[in-house]
Amino acid sequence: MSLAEGSVLVGNKSVMNYVLAAVIQFNQGAKKVSIKARGRAISRAVDVAEIVRSRFLKDEVDVSSIKIGSEKVGEAGKERTISTIEIVLERKK
Amino acid sequence: MSLAEGSVLVGNKSVMNYVLAAVIQFNQGAKKVSIKARGRAISRAVDVAEIVRSRFLKDEVDVSSIKIGSEKVGEAGKERTISTIEIVLERKK
Repeated sequence: MSLAEGSVLVGNKSVMNYVLAAVIQFNQGAKKVSIKARGRAISRAVDVAEIVRSRFLKDEVDVSSIKIGSEKVGEAGKERTISTIEIVLERKK
Repeated sequence: MSLAEGSVLVGNKSVMNYVLAAVIQFNQGAKKVSIKARGRAISRAVDVAEIVRSRFLKDEVDVSSIKIGSEKVGEAGKERTISTIEIVLERKK
């Protein structure tokens, strides 16, 4: 499998699960991998990006963009707003 | 008091404490306010930035940059690496 752009949705599993998912996508040829998370998993997404960038693929990938935003979740009348993050890691030229 | 550049270090208090700290700094004349956090407070820092930007100072401030990084904490031999974030909010021209 080869893909130009990969993505990892970070949830409640341990950080290393998501680190490996991202590293595998780069090793399969992805030029970019988006690390996405919502709510309290946002801290973990930053950990994932930092570990990939500074340990597993040191000098090979860099953070190319970071975006934050908000999303409404829950049923009508019980809606909550939660924050989101998207960190794009990109293979260096 | 007037300052060109303010800063808010997000810790374990409730989100609204930090939101108000940032809003006050803008109201005192700050052109930029940096929202900084480490470790698990990173998710809260994103909440702070989103709430200031989309509710309290809607159409007045925007995210001008987001940086992530790592820091070593703890004594020698017991060092841990934790992630950091710095979100800069800037008053629109």
